Amino acid sequence: MNIKDILFEKLESKEQEMIKHRRYLHQHPELSFEEEQTAQYIKDYYKGKPVNVTQPVEGGHAVIVEIEGKLPGKTIGLRADFDALPIKEETDFDFKSENEGVMHACGHDAHTASLLTLADALIEIREQLPGTVKIVHQHAEEQPPGGAQQVMQSGALDDVAEIYGLHVAPVVGPEIIAYNKGNAFSGSSVFTLKIKGVGGHAASPHKTNDALVAGANFVSTVQTVVSRRIDPLEMGVVTIGSFDAPGKANVIQDTVTIKGTARYLNDEVGQKMYEEIEKVVKSVAVGFDIDYDLDYMFGYPVLYNHPKETDKVAEILSESQGSYFQQLMEMPPVTGSEDFAYYLKEIPGSFYVVGCKPVGVKDPYMNHHPKFEVNEDALIVAAKSLGDIALNRLPLDSVE
Amino acid sequence: MNIKDILFEKLESKEQEMIKHRRYLHQHPELSFEEEQTAQYIKDYYKGKPVNVTQPVEGGHAVIVEIEGKLPGKTIGLRADFDALPIKEETDFDFKSENEGVMHACGHDAHTASLLTLADALIEIREQLPGTVKIVHQHAEEQPPGGAQQVMQSGALDDVAEIYGLHVAPVVGPEIIAYNKGNAFSGSSVFTLKIKGVGGHAASPHKTNDALVAGANFVSTVQTVVSRRIDPLEMGVVTIGSFDAPGKANVIQDTVTIKGTARYLNDEVGQKMYEEIEKVVKSVAVGFDIDYDLDYMFGYPVLYNHPKETDKVAEILSESQGSYFQQLMEMPPVTGSEDFAYYLKEIPGSFYVVGCKPVGVKDPYMNHHPKFEVNEDALIVAAKSLGDIALNRLPLDSVE
Amino acid sequence: MNIKDILFEKLESKEQEMIKHRRYLHQHPELSFEEEQTAQYIKDYYKGKPVNVTQPVEGGHAVIVEIEGKLPGKTIGLRADFDALPIKEETDFDFKSENEGVMHACGHDAHTASLLTLADALIEIREQLPGTVKIVHQHAEEQPPGGAQQVMQSGALDDVAEIYGLHVAPVVGPEIIAYNKGNAFSGSSVFTLKIKGVGGHAASPHKTNDALVAGANFVSTVQTVVSRRIDPLEMGVVTIGSFDAPGKANVIQDTVTIKGTARYLNDEVGQKMYEEIEKVVKSVAVGFDIDYDLDYMFGYPVLYNHPKETDKVAEILSESQGSYFQQLMEMPPVTGSEDFAYYLKEIPGSFYVVGCKPVGVKDPYMNHHPKFEVNEDALIVAAKSLGDIALNRLPLDSVE
Amino acid sequence: MNIKDILFEKLESKEQEMIKHRRYLHQHPELSFEEEQTAQYIKDYYKGKPVNVTQPVEGGHAVIVEIEGKLPGKTIGLRADFDALPIKEETDFDFKSENEGVMHACGHDAHTASLLTLADALIEIREQLPGTVKIVHQHAEEQPPGGAQQVMQSGALDDVAEIYGLHVAPVVGPEIIAYNKGNAFSGSSVFTLKIKGVGGHAASPHKTNDALVAGANFVSTVQTVVSRRIDPLEMGVVTIGSFDAPGKANVIQDTVTIKGTARYLNDEVGQKMYEEIEKVVKSVAVGFDIDYDLDYMFGYPVLYNHPKETDKVAEILSESQGSYFQQLMEMPPVTGSEDFAYYLKEIPGSFYVVGCKPVGVKDPYMNHHPKFEVNEDALIVAAKSLGDIALNRLPLDSVE
Repeated sequence: MNIKDILFEKLESKEQEMIKHRRYLHQHPELSFEEEQTAQYIKDYYKGKPVNVTQPVEGGHAVIVEIEGKLPGKTIGLRADFDALPIKEETDFDFKSENEGVMHACGHDAHTASLLTLADALIEIREQLPGTVKIVHQHAEEQPPGGAQQVMQSGALDDVAEIYGLHVAPVVGPEIIAYNKGNAFSGSSVFTLKIKGVGGHAASPHKTNDALVAGANFVSTVQTVVSRRIDPLEMGVVTIGSFDAPGKANVIQDTVTIKGTARYLNDEVGQKMYEEIEKVVKSVAVGFDIDYDLDYMFGYPVLYNHPKETDKVAEILSESQGSYFQQLMEMPPVTGSEDFAYYLKEIPGSFYVVGCKPVGVKDPYMNHHPKFEVNEDALIVAAKSLGDIALNRLPLDSVE
Repeated sequence: MNIKDILFEKLESKEQEMIKHRRYLHQHPELSFEEEQTAQYIKDYYKGKPVNVTQPVEGGHAVIVEIEGKLPGKTIGLRADFDALPIKEETDFDFKSENEGVMHACGHDAHTASLLTLADALIEIREQLPGTVKIVHQHAEEQPPGGAQQVMQSGALDDVAEIYGLHVAPVVGPEIIAYNKGNAFSGSSVFTLKIKGVGGHAASPHKTNDALVAGANFVSTVQTVVSRRIDPLEMGVVTIGSFDAPGKANVIQDTVTIKGTARYLNDEVGQKMYEEIEKVVKSVAVGFDIDYDLDYMFGYPVLYNHPKETDKVAEILSESQGSYFQQLMEMPPVTGSEDFAYYLKEIPGSFYVVGCKPVGVKDPYMNHHPKFEVNEDALIVAAKSLGDIALNRLPLDSVE
Repeated sequence: MNIKDILFEKLESKEQEMIKHRRYLHQHPELSFEEEQTAQYIKDYYKGKPVNVTQPVEGGHAVIVEIEGKLPGKTIGLRADFDALPIKEETDFDFKSENEGVMHACGHDAHTASLLTLADALIEIREQLPGTVKIVHQHAEEQPPGGAQQVMQSGALDDVAEIYGLHVAPVVGPEIIAYNKGNAFSGSSVFTLKIKGVGGHAASPHKTNDALVAGANFVSTVQTVVSRRIDPLEMGVVTIGSFDAPGKANVIQDTVTIKGTARYLNDEVGQKMYEEIEKVVKSVAVGFDIDYDLDYMFGYPVLYNHPKETDKVAEILSESQGSYFQQLMEMPPVTGSEDFAYYLKEIPGSFYVVGCKPVGVKDPYMNHHPKFEVNEDALIVAAKSLGDIALNRLPLDSVE
Repeated sequence: MNIKDILFEKLESKEQEMIKHRRYLHQHPELSFEEEQTAQYIKDYYKGKPVNVTQPVEGGHAVIVEIEGKLPGKTIGLRADFDALPIKEETDFDFKSENEGVMHACGHDAHTASLLTLADALIEIREQLPGTVKIVHQHAEEQPPGGAQQVMQSGALDDVAEIYGLHVAPVVGPEIIAYNKGNAFSGSSVFTLKIKGVGGHAASPHKTNDALVAGANFVSTVQTVVSRRIDPLEMGVVTIGSFDAPGKANVIQDTVTIKGTARYLNDEVGQKMYEEIEKVVKSVAVGFDIDYDLDYMFGYPVLYNHPKETDKVAEILSESQGSYFQQLMEMPPVTGSEDFAYYLKEIPGSFYVVGCKPVGVKDPYMNHHPKFEVNEDALIVAAKSLGDIALNRLPLDSVE
């Protein structure tokens, strides 16, 4: 029996335990940067196991677990995130969140449970394991600046040759794995623009600097950022999600607050969008004689799936297609953001998606929905696929 | 002693009583259309007096008091309004509003007190009085469609040959009376526009019909109503006072609600503005594929001070200048609205302003401010000027 | 026979000669600042007459004729302009312009002919004439900065106590004279905005700074100058008359040229409009990263008809109503400009309008039209009315 | 010696002749749909050769040449276009255009010369040739609706299993061949929008329907087509290249004419852009009360390089890399249009680019420039690469 078969057999035997972990985590969610109990739970899990467990991020809760194989090989990182969201769960599960207002509504519980279990199985086969696996249990993925950047800055992954991770998504079921190459998950920024004019009486606009009209002008003119100022071959969106200026019909407002977001699949485009949005803001200030505060915050950068490693992932999974999952598909770029992007800025690797749609559901609740649900069959697909990739990429000769 | 001197002497002797009435009314304000106690107070005042008191408006509280003089003459209407505003008073007077959240912040208490007192004095001199005075204690001036229209529709003023009224204003002190001729107080309309698109994810605008961008487009395009669509020689303002679309930066909204007002000094212009605003709304609906509700409500029409009667008022007051007040001035059109406009649509007459700025104050609180204050010296100026005009206009030969 | 009757009799006897002068001038029009022959014609006219003729403007063609009366009185100025327009005449008159491409399409020929004749008549009655009449034959009214300013700067009118003038207009016939008081003829400015971006290929907008989109943004945003930035009680218009950017569908332009005009009835508003237009221009430059040239030229200021003098004119003409003309009417402010405004900035006076609609015409061609036509009955109305005013205003006791 | 070596040896020996053909064609350019002499030149070339020559397009000049190999195989189409542009040549070549105002400024002369020569060589080796080659000499590529659609409609290519073609481009030299897969050359549409309002005097906008302001509003609002209405992952551009409204500063125009183009890499997006642009036009009509003519013309559709055939092309050329050219590169989608798109709508195949930058030039003149120049070394690269592909794809077993 080859090492892969052994690993998979072990994973299968641990499936119920894996689901138990997932449900425990689901029941005890913690917000980003506050995941103390979760980190403790993870550390307890590894207690007594022949691995090196560290928490390299000062003030953060990431747990890094080093599994040294006995055969020569590279160091591969495998990552799962473990923070939850400020959402009030609306499901009926008996393992529903006990932490009112906090919910594992993005599947990080599933990510973590499958990585815990995979780690356990890898530890058990470490005698035949070539190279080293660094298990990266990451905190604070949901809250920029995020945990990934902190893990990278800690130096804990300096010796990692390749890194892999995944996300569950309910668009498709666990029988499908999806990947893409190059710029794969969009970068995003958010901004808040406060326009400060001078208010007054509706009938005397000449005595005011009308912040509301200035704000509307901003919304109209900022459309040209996408339509005229970025390469049409590049993806770019500027959405204004909030125009907060409630008032009376007959009073000219002095202040309006506008919130928006920019999305892009190329960080240079993201930088350009920021510059052009700021240009439009300045333009409105000059033209309408108003003051402003622009609070512009870059979120996670574009996640770049390295072509060579992604081709390898596709090749590896393609060979497994039909065994523990049914279909490997290439997907278009994803317009969501992921702080896994920070790992891939330094370390070759790839990040992919495992379906988690519940059986028989036509319109599943998406990630971040209070009724979000994970098909738990996805856990073993997650664990096996990451293990599959690790075993293939660990041997020294896996580098061409 | 002529009749005017007699009247003025009587008014002077009743000044303290007049102030007492004003303070009582101030302490017991009632909202428009809810002025039951106020109306009762007025009716009680006239109890036992040789006048005909009616309440001709069904469901409204207007009190009409007919004072028949013993000499031949015309019928002249004198009007004061008596409703208050939904404002929480912030003054320190010992006669501060006892009706929490309701305040005589527009001076209608002063109007009513001076008219009550003037009526009393006129009753006392009715033996020498030519013609008839109809004292119009009007309800609900602050709340369109307003009380004036109801009074007119009741037929109670069908025999009135001329009508006069006034408003106190703290821009100047009681030593000044201001008048203007023709279109004198602006008409106004208010509207609420609900734009109903289809919301969605910030990164997928093409799956939405973005109500916020459509709303901003409306605000920008509606500027052309004033800039291009009305006669530059006519006054016109469209102010958007509310753009209510608070939300998350990264969610495209499906509905935004916009509120605005139009002001004009010519009812045809007001009608045109409505038509053009609606055109812009329809344009946005077509262009952005959105549904909408436009709730457009015409407020009071433009108040037209009849030229001949206004010239007469100016002549009468001009002759009194230097006695009970110091200066008569012509003022530019006022951008506020007044439902006295409805009387003047049918009956010749004029509406003017008596200063009520407190002594020694540089920047007085304006009408509708929670700290609005009336210089009580204005009351006798109001009473005398209205009496002055009535005595001059009542005799049959006052019609040229 | 009183002096007015004498004057009018003389004017009547000179009517055919006056018309002959008008036709001669019409046949020999000259452009603004180039009126050499016209000035010579005028000087020749006065040759040998007992008057003082000067040409006080260096490099301009204005002719000032001083008629000293033998009785004591003030000095009154009467002005007529004599330049023509760069318009190709399209009438069939036998006195049609002989100067191809130049036409008296604004009636200055009529103004001048009637003033020449009035001067002649006044000279003849100078023995009975109180005070002095300064006949101001002015050049270059059609071309800012205009001749009036130069005449004023020359000091030639320093001793003039009051000044009067008129314009013919074909809206009504010669039986009507129209006047207005205060801000009477609008001020105007013209501007040319050159927007200089960076052009390029239609499919690569991000490599360009799109001048055309910036220009459109200017046109849209500049609407707020009138709609939000000037007092709604003041008249103001900004019209963009030219957007010159012809090109291919698939090439992004680097330069567009926009021309516009501002109109106002208050010079402060005119100044404010300039500042706000410039603000919008700067805003577009900042927002779209373009360079620009803004060439903004103030035209003639607002013509202010002095209230007292205008009331006097109304009184004088009102008394003559029914004799040499039928109806005196008050007119709304005129949206055209007149450099007579410069006289009235320093000297009390008034400027009014005499109808010149041809008989039996329903839709007459307006001033500046190639088929513009003057009803020659207007000439004697012009001469008589100016004479009427002069005779009334000259005596020393005409000053209250 | 294998068949490819034989073919290449033949092409090398014919290189000078090929260049001669190219120069002759360059000197005798003809506009799209008027290529009578060019078609005759091509037919003359094949005269006496053992091929079947047809002109299947009625009223068009396309020449189809069927080369039947003696071995079994498929039918492969190879296409070159032969029309020229309405451009006045500004080069100094001794083979400069003799047809004033018409120029081979896009390299179709090079395309045709290399295909003529390749055809000649293929004819010579037809004994060893598997399958059939259809040489497609196409007319009218530059002028939508174009010649390709006509060729397809003629049925002349009904038996063609695969089709290939290329374009020369001076961005790189002849040592480079570039290809891309999927949506490769953009689709484009052009439109002319005539906005018909009501003109008038600058000071009376309310009597007009201002076409210029409406046009500016269109330009501003149409930005939302790209920014909000198409999938951000799809390429889309709307460029307004012409805003033709020259006029006087003080006259409101009644008509403005706007021209623009839309570009896209997905025909569905192109269709959507049309619908949304029309929506904005209708919106402006409703909002500004104007009439309009919208003349919207779809140009060539998106050129779709079939993935399998493109992968094969990449594989074939990749193997030849280093022999007759140095580098095969993948390129981003091209924002220009090509009517080769019509072939690929029905027939599998691929279209690629051969560099033609002149030696030693840093900023070469691009296609359609009056100084456009072709490095003639590109001709044999073009001929060899097309031959290379044909020989590999003709055998029956080339179909997987």
